[in-house]
Amino acid sequence: MEIILREGQKTDMSAVLSLIQELASFEKEANAVELSVEELERDGFGPQPLFRVFVAERNNEIVGMALFYERYSTWKGRSIHLEDLIVKHQYRGEGIGKALYTKVLTYAHDQNLKRVSWEVLDWNTVAIDFYNSTGANILESWKVVHMNENSLDAFVSKD
Amino acid sequence: MEIILREGQKTDMSAVLSLIQELASFEKEANAVELSVEELERDGFGPQPLFRVFVAERNNEIVGMALFYERYSTWKGRSIHLEDLIVKHQYRGEGIGKALYTKVLTYAHDQNLKRVSWEVLDWNTVAIDFYNSTGANILESWKVVHMNENSLDAFVSKD
Repeated sequence: MEIILREGQKTDMSAVLSLIQELASFEKEANAVELSVEELERDGFGPQPLFRVFVAERNNEIVGMALFYERYSTWKGRSIHLEDLIVKHQYRGEGIGKALYTKVLTYAHDQNLKRVSWEVLDWNTVAIDFYNSTGANILESWKVVHMNENSLDAFVSKD
Repeated sequence: MEIILREGQKTDMSAVLSLIQELASFEKEANAVELSVEELERDGFGPQPLFRVFVAERNNEIVGMALFYERYSTWKGRSIHLEDLIVKHQYRGEGIGKALYTKVLTYAHDQNLKRVSWEVLDWNTVAIDFYNSTGANILESWKVVHMNENSLDAFVSKD
């Protein structure tokens, strides 16, 4: 069956949100997704889109997606961050994930961007082995820090 | 001596690059900085700025800075990433870093952003303890992945 990779459209956001939720469940954070379809539509398709997404379509069904946006490295310059890459469970093992990954990296290369970054869970050894095999570098010494909305509220109101 | 916190201007980029280099040296990556003053001026002050920076000024000298840009969380929505925060070595311990940190978090809060993220080296326990004391969350299970320009070239040309 043919797989079509294409830029995601506003009308794809419902399918994209389902994939975001499937990935969050895989990451054992099923309840973490607070975004709505309407917010994805607004944020991705306004005058200054906050992200872009490539989707994989098979027989008119969206079976995978890669969502990314631009970042800025003070060491290297313009870069992109691959926020989510996921293929529906029943369509894995067919090379769709690799095709989406390649599309994002090729886009970054064509745009002359200096880095692509993303994050991976340390127990996801299948993904880590794959990333290593493609020349990506898993940083061992850096930790990700988040201050979420509730903590922001508390910090700012105390200050 | 009075400290002024203000939005960085194009003419501040030389001082900002010095601080980027000082931070990279502290992070044992002194040779990692490939950016030039001209690139910072172009990227931060064009029609679509790729970052913003707050600077701390003391007696007309820039003694610290916090550089950040917008990201997009597929769980929470609009967020900002604090890429670099540094105070010149000889001016530490006077609360300038805390003031810059507070300015960035307050900005995020005022903009109704859903998260502020950043990264920290695992041996930088002074910073980690400070972040924890302010309500930030150090993620223990996530690893940062980078594919740099050379690996991108190699991957895309092989594919």
